[in-house]
Amino acid sequence: MAKTDKINFSTPSGFPEFLPSEKRLELYLLDTIRRVYESYGFTPIETPAVERLEVLQAKGNQGDNIIYGIDPILPPNRQAERDKAGETGSEARALKFDQTVPLAAYIARHLNELTFPFARYQMDVVFRGERAKDGRFRQFRQCDIDVIARRELSLLYDAQMPAIITEIFEAVNIGDFLIRINNRKILTGFFQSLGIAETQIKTCISIIDNLEKIGETKVKQELEKEGISPENTQKIIDFIKIDGNVDEVLDKLKHLSQNLPTAEQFSLGVTELETVITGVRNLGVPDKRFCIDLSIARGLNYYTGTVYETTLIGHEALGSICSGGRYEELVGMFIGEKMPGVGISIGLTRLISRLLKAGILKTLPATPAQVVVVNMQEDLMPTYLKVSQQLRQAGINVITNFEKRPLGKQFQAADKQGIRFCVIIGTDEAAAQKSSLKDLQTGEQVEVALADLAAEVKHRLEL
Amino acid sequence: MAKTDKINFSTPSGFPEFLPSEKRLELYLLDTIRRVYESYGFTPIETPAVERLEVLQAKGNQGDNIIYGIDPILPPNRQAERDKAGETGSEARALKFDQTVPLAAYIARHLNELTFPFARYQMDVVFRGERAKDGRFRQFRQCDIDVIARRELSLLYDAQMPAIITEIFEAVNIGDFLIRINNRKILTGFFQSLGIAETQIKTCISIIDNLEKIGETKVKQELEKEGISPENTQKIIDFIKIDGNVDEVLDKLKHLSQNLPTAEQFSLGVTELETVITGVRNLGVPDKRFCIDLSIARGLNYYTGTVYETTLIGHEALGSICSGGRYEELVGMFIGEKMPGVGISIGLTRLISRLLKAGILKTLPATPAQVVVVNMQEDLMPTYLKVSQQLRQAGINVITNFEKRPLGKQFQAADKQGIRFCVIIGTDEAAAQKSSLKDLQTGEQVEVALADLAAEVKHRLEL
Repeated sequence: MAKTDKINFSTPSGFPEFLPSEKRLELYLLDTIRRVYESYGFTPIETPAVERLEVLQAKGNQGDNIIYGIDPILPPNRQAERDKAGETGSEARALKFDQTVPLAAYIARHLNELTFPFARYQMDVVFRGERAKDGRFRQFRQCDIDVIARRELSLLYDAQMPAIITEIFEAVNIGDFLIRINNRKILTGFFQSLGIAETQIKTCISIIDNLEKIGETKVKQELEKEGISPENTQKIIDFIKIDGNVDEVLDKLKHLSQNLPTAEQFSLGVTELETVITGVRNLGVPDKRFCIDLSIARGLNYYTGTVYETTLIGHEALGSICSGGRYEELVGMFIGEKMPGVGISIGLTRLISRLLKAGILKTLPATPAQVVVVNMQEDLMPTYLKVSQQLRQAGINVITNFEKRPLGKQFQAADKQGIRFCVIIGTDEAAAQKSSLKDLQTGEQVEVALADLAAEVKHRLEL
Repeated sequence: MAKTDKINFSTPSGFPEFLPSEKRLELYLLDTIRRVYESYGFTPIETPAVERLEVLQAKGNQGDNIIYGIDPILPPNRQAERDKAGETGSEARALKFDQTVPLAAYIARHLNELTFPFARYQMDVVFRGERAKDGRFRQFRQCDIDVIARRELSLLYDAQMPAIITEIFEAVNIGDFLIRINNRKILTGFFQSLGIAETQIKTCISIIDNLEKIGETKVKQELEKEGISPENTQKIIDFIKIDGNVDEVLDKLKHLSQNLPTAEQFSLGVTELETVITGVRNLGVPDKRFCIDLSIARGLNYYTGTVYETTLIGHEALGSICSGGRYEELVGMFIGEKMPGVGISIGLTRLISRLLKAGILKTLPATPAQVVVVNMQEDLMPTYLKVSQQLRQAGINVITNFEKRPLGKQFQAADKQGIRFCVIIGTDEAAAQKSSLKDLQTGEQVEVALADLAAEVKHRLEL
């Protein structure tokens, strides 16, 4: 066969793909995340990869996200179809860059078909045309949940989020983590009480949000550059550095809220935070899993209340592994309705890539097969096929070796792929309705009646 | 909140999205398909949605598939970045239109990291810029398996495919179906024996492949238009209409193969077909599930041996719900190696859309929740949260009602979403560590100790 010459078959820069052992890890994580999301009643949706450009740009290009437009590649003699199909100009289409704007569009499209509060999860891939660097991808999967109400949304939905984060990261066993909780009303209220102008507050919040990244000195400089007085700057630094256990911080906040001038927003934020913390505890989340961190704000300006970040202890440099918060004016944008919501997002592709690099996660075996039925004699193939089917019907994943190779090679190949068991049947075994079951992990080999084989394998696999 | 005016928030034409009840059905089908694929040892991969355009076009635009190019939408002052990033010209990128060309690229990219025979499944969405009509989508999900070898690939892999198709469609319970099996070597060999020129054979095969769609008269006309003599045309028609049970057809073919002149390809095809059929039977597929249909060829010219189509009995107009076959020169294209493979594909998005319309499949309840813990008294919320968590830890999906509404409304809302059970706890029940469990399907209400609640719900759900 002639080689197709000169074609660069590598993936385009920034578009990652996984080997089977990595993809299987991703599926395991997706299954776990989905199981936890569903256990809280979140229901799945998927929006198309492609939306109208005007929909994606309705809120402006969120941050610096560069959107990919799409356009059919037509041969010269079919250009007319493009214009007929109305696929350009006002009908321009592009790839989604997040799942929030599409959620807003989804809600507008199906308003009367959905039940509110609408609790949905969505684990699609999104696309951003950024320069591929620093482990950033141009295509990546996000695992989002949001719950949206048409009027009021109980703060207990905010309390569920840390419970969900805890269950997921405990289930996947990546070590200790800490969910840092704050409420943007507390920050806004605190800045108001210092007499800082409303127009400056969002900028100031963005600056302190960078405390961990840029350090205290830099935060001070940037605040002063914004025109904040040295005295207020120091007050801000002292405030966001308040620490202690959850109850101590709540006490300090309640005390402050009685003493701050014009503290309405501040008090509201403290009350909200206390309600959320009480809910988190009632949901059984252990105290070691969460804290109040007054420097957490989430850069995105749409958050209006509770905000979360999650840090892997001992791996703080990885940044937040799960973040989110509450917003008021985000998903109702297409229908002109205030729809309060709260949500979190796990940037799964980046997370896997970083956790694999850091050695925190390990890939899975390259195949889901748990058993290989080896090929000893071609004439026994009907038996091999029958035994394979019996094992499969019992829920076991089986490869039947159709290739005739030396037995040692067959064991070796199975072991290399991480398959645990080989089933060996020769003429004598077949006649006696028996098999030899070889455990490649221990080297042990036992004789098992064919009738008991599935039960024996399941027992050993702890299925 | 001001409405974002004049934005057309509908999905772009041809880009479908599902309601939760439909997406849950899709996930159920994906889970089932994946379980069966994995039980035969197929391992998951996912290739990026985006490939280099030259990769996608390496085999020419397969059929009439129109490819979508992608291009970052940059503000005027950042156009230079596009050129720097080298994203145009020879680096042009586009959305994948199938999973076969990307599989070939994947194998080229990871040749030394994969174990052969390489059995992979892939359930990604693909994109085709066709006119959206006739239930055709521009974005749709395909569930493909292929097994690829570097030299020889046993015909028993071909035999596994009907077993896999059978298990999937029996599991999802869509009624009777028939897998129609043929071998293109038989067709090629038969045309050769009639003295039809090699250059005409592929065209003739494409024509007879349309027998079901265009009827016998039209097939005759088209063959004669190709220059096939009326005598040969009649022989072809008689041949592809050979019917009977599998053994009868095999007997007829074997008889023919002894009598046809220059029947080498023909005999080879018959031997292959017989080997495959024997394998299918040894794998326990009941005879009612498959037949030999000599008119099946699969339009795509890359198939070289076994071919499959699957018809839903009583719904033949839906067309084939699962098709595939064996090929020799497809996935080795980027490395210039002959790599025999065999695969099948389920066009899931289209299948769901058609089966829902035909009433063959039904959507699932709009939420995965199985239980609602109703809100009777706000002050009992800590109990509601605790009970909800106990149920979740037992593997039950639970919504806690945070909103205080009349009990009847809470039952109604749960029932409307297809949730089966409500857990009712008032002051007395809480004090006695009990609850009332209401079955919304039967109306029955029983008293259950909180300690037994999870077990009782699981029992009733048959979990």
